[in-house]
Amino acid sequence: MTTSSMLKPTDRSKVKRRPQKGHYDRELIHQILDEALVIHVGFIANNQPFVIPMGYGRDGDCLYIHGTSASRMLKSLEQGIDVCVTATLLDGLVIARSLFHYSMNYRSVVLFGRATLLEDEAEKTQALKVLSEHMVPGSWEQARRPTAQEVKATKVLVFPIEEGSAKVSTGDPKDDASDYELPIWAGQIPLKITPGVPIPDSKLADGIAIPENLLKYHRGG
Amino acid sequence: MTTSSMLKPTDRSKVKRRPQKGHYDRELIHQILDEALVIHVGFIANNQPFVIPMGYGRDGDCLYIHGTSASRMLKSLEQGIDVCVTATLLDGLVIARSLFHYSMNYRSVVLFGRATLLEDEAEKTQALKVLSEHMVPGSWEQARRPTAQEVKATKVLVFPIEEGSAKVSTGDPKDDASDYELPIWAGQIPLKITPGVPIPDSKLADGIAIPENLLKYHRGG
Repeated sequence: MTTSSMLKPTDRSKVKRRPQKGHYDRELIHQILDEALVIHVGFIANNQPFVIPMGYGRDGDCLYIHGTSASRMLKSLEQGIDVCVTATLLDGLVIARSLFHYSMNYRSVVLFGRATLLEDEAEKTQALKVLSEHMVPGSWEQARRPTAQEVKATKVLVFPIEEGSAKVSTGDPKDDASDYELPIWAGQIPLKITPGVPIPDSKLADGIAIPENLLKYHRGG
Repeated sequence: MTTSSMLKPTDRSKVKRRPQKGHYDRELIHQILDEALVIHVGFIANNQPFVIPMGYGRDGDCLYIHGTSASRMLKSLEQGIDVCVTATLLDGLVIARSLFHYSMNYRSVVLFGRATLLEDEAEKTQALKVLSEHMVPGSWEQARRPTAQEVKATKVLVFPIEEGSAKVSTGDPKDDASDYELPIWAGQIPLKITPGVPIPDSKLADGIAIPENLLKYHRGG
């Protein structure tokens, strides 16, 4: 089976507002998912919508989430209920001449589907590697890896990247023609998630240097 | 009627996983909402969960969202359907000695309730001021304000900050006792949304300086 480079838009995944900002190519969707650190997972329980922030990892067309086996949320999701997963990268504030045209530049992904529980220990371990490397590239080499018992105590769900879309907003403000004459500054304030100086654990033993992958930590290209 | 300084936990708003991280005091909830720029709004349409990122503003116990009158999402929300609103501030990566204890430090708010459409022009205008000032403090003074026609073309919904909770995770990793002997660096990588140098609009007229509020733009304390 060949995998198309595009996701097929469906009624629920098609971008309706400003369709020119909607994208369905896997490469872009993967890029956004690889840069973000948190997804917002939406699901229905007791007829109520819930939106919970979670870490995650991606491998190919699979998105992994994990947590303790006791998690009520994961227990709901593993039943195969409908889930909406959203990742948002805020790239900047768009400063227009008129407040009406103030906006934000962003890249977001909205996915629809159902999650499946991973049962196989080898598959779970591989997913935990993907989750670790997503958050901190190099961490699988650097830290103590999960024991069989830890893998067992962890619930891992896989969510397919099959149905969804990206939405991208970039560039200058779009002001009304008559407003371009106003003596008001307009443009963009770029925003980025930036790492600060690593803070050592208060119980860190002497003589342990900060590893390179943490010193050079960054998100995106 | 006096307003309690605490939100009353309900079955859907009570923090179950790690209840020690759950908070119900308004001041903390307001602080998190005032620092974040984007909320993830969850709702049900056609029996499916949807999670959409949106800008917003806060005034007292009211959260405002807005958009074009044509927005299908706002049309759904104004029907008074159940909504879950989540704001997440990612404060850092928690680097443990074992991957099992890797985690993130964050402050998040999850709110439940129903939105109401604002109809009164003065109330709408005031809400638009709150929305503008939330995104860019000082913008109401600096940019051209909305005309009556623009106010009319904008749909504004108000969402009550009545039922919900904050969840806060801070500090050092919590490793297994035996792992503290390992020669592995542990600690935190702080993360913050930081503004870059403002980029002028390509159509900006000569001689318009960047205003102070944009030069000094930052989120949080």
